[in-house]
Amino acid sequence: MSKHLQRELDELRHELLALFGIVEQMIAKAFRALRDRRTDLAREVIGSDEDVDAREVRIEEECLKLLALHQPVASDLRWLTMVIKINSDLERMADLACNIAERAEALNLYPMFPIPNDLQAMVREASTMVRHALDAFVDTDVKLAKQVIQADDSVDDLNRRVIAELQELMKAAPENVEPALHCFSAARHLERVADLAENLAEDVIFMVDGQIVRHHGAFSEG
Amino acid sequence: MSKHLQRELDELRHELLALFGIVEQMIAKAFRALRDRRTDLAREVIGSDEDVDAREVRIEEECLKLLALHQPVASDLRWLTMVIKINSDLERMADLACNIAERAEALNLYPMFPIPNDLQAMVREASTMVRHALDAFVDTDVKLAKQVIQADDSVDDLNRRVIAELQELMKAAPENVEPALHCFSAARHLERVADLAENLAEDVIFMVDGQIVRHHGAFSEG
Repeated sequence: MSKHLQRELDELRHELLALFGIVEQMIAKAFRALRDRRTDLAREVIGSDEDVDAREVRIEEECLKLLALHQPVASDLRWLTMVIKINSDLERMADLACNIAERAEALNLYPMFPIPNDLQAMVREASTMVRHALDAFVDTDVKLAKQVIQADDSVDDLNRRVIAELQELMKAAPENVEPALHCFSAARHLERVADLAENLAEDVIFMVDGQIVRHHGAFSEG
Repeated sequence: MSKHLQRELDELRHELLALFGIVEQMIAKAFRALRDRRTDLAREVIGSDEDVDAREVRIEEECLKLLALHQPVASDLRWLTMVIKINSDLERMADLACNIAERAEALNLYPMFPIPNDLQAMVREASTMVRHALDAFVDTDVKLAKQVIQADDSVDDLNRRVIAELQELMKAAPENVEPALHCFSAARHLERVADLAENLAEDVIFMVDGQIVRHHGAFSEG
């Protein structure tokens, strides 16, 4: 591989990590908007989306440029095509963070509503999954990628508990139905973030081993 | 472009359309499983997932092989990287169809529950969006791609109506809460199918015009 290509790939990796940093912040902030009834934070999250979109476009263009100019083969080629997919998934995670922020805005219009505690644990787990999946990609660390895949089960468990709690609230009083549905949607969006992290981890294993684990669990629960 | 590459690209297009055909059937069948309380159809949908996964892996490998062997540039390069993204999105749509089928299985455990009529219209609209998005890609038809983007608004409208109807059912009787939530999740999965079709259409416009419309609506509602 030319030194020039190596430098460009390093830069791309750097840009991808920067994008991830923003997305991670957006997810954390969207949850705080929900938990602390902070509509201002929800608006901040939604406001970040434009920057994310611009970065996504730039990274994809950069990938296409490198493919065309350097015509990499084998591992570099696979790495670059993975960047294209990861980049697109990070942008989707940012959209999901915006969706959660919108649910927070909607929820804040109702009187105080008890957010299930397990939702916070879900945010933590899902964010860790994304971070580990990205680390696994950057360090081509198959072991870490496998941990990410396992972690998805715990997000699913938390999600089930959140849903059970919301169901009880809705059954207890009709006026809980609407706010609980906003919360339910937020949990679904978080679950989708975790799924995207799992997809990424599966792709890392495929990239390294050529081993197809991506469909080991058939499909994520929903 | 070499004749050889042309033939390989044609074959790839063919495989992608075949994959789409399966996914389209899965979505339609998952909805019938829900509407007609056909647990057998739900299981058929879930059973198709393996075939979809195998096809996705094959198409991606084919793309990587063509990139490495032919080192295409310009429009062929962009086309191939789009196939990688579309392929991955089709597989996700199949997962969403499986998720809807799971909701059908769960719903069928409850006594008869009135599925909102607008859910059927949503299925129809979302499937048409996917079909048109794929046609727009295959025929590089920007006009059709723009129609797909507009159609997403109508799916969002239908989704709002479905949610409103489900909310009323839940408020009316606590025993409606659980089945209505399964229906609500199915609607959310369908909405996600429509979003994926919209993403695809935006990418087609970007591929043809270099015009970035993909983020014109900031992010899809959720």
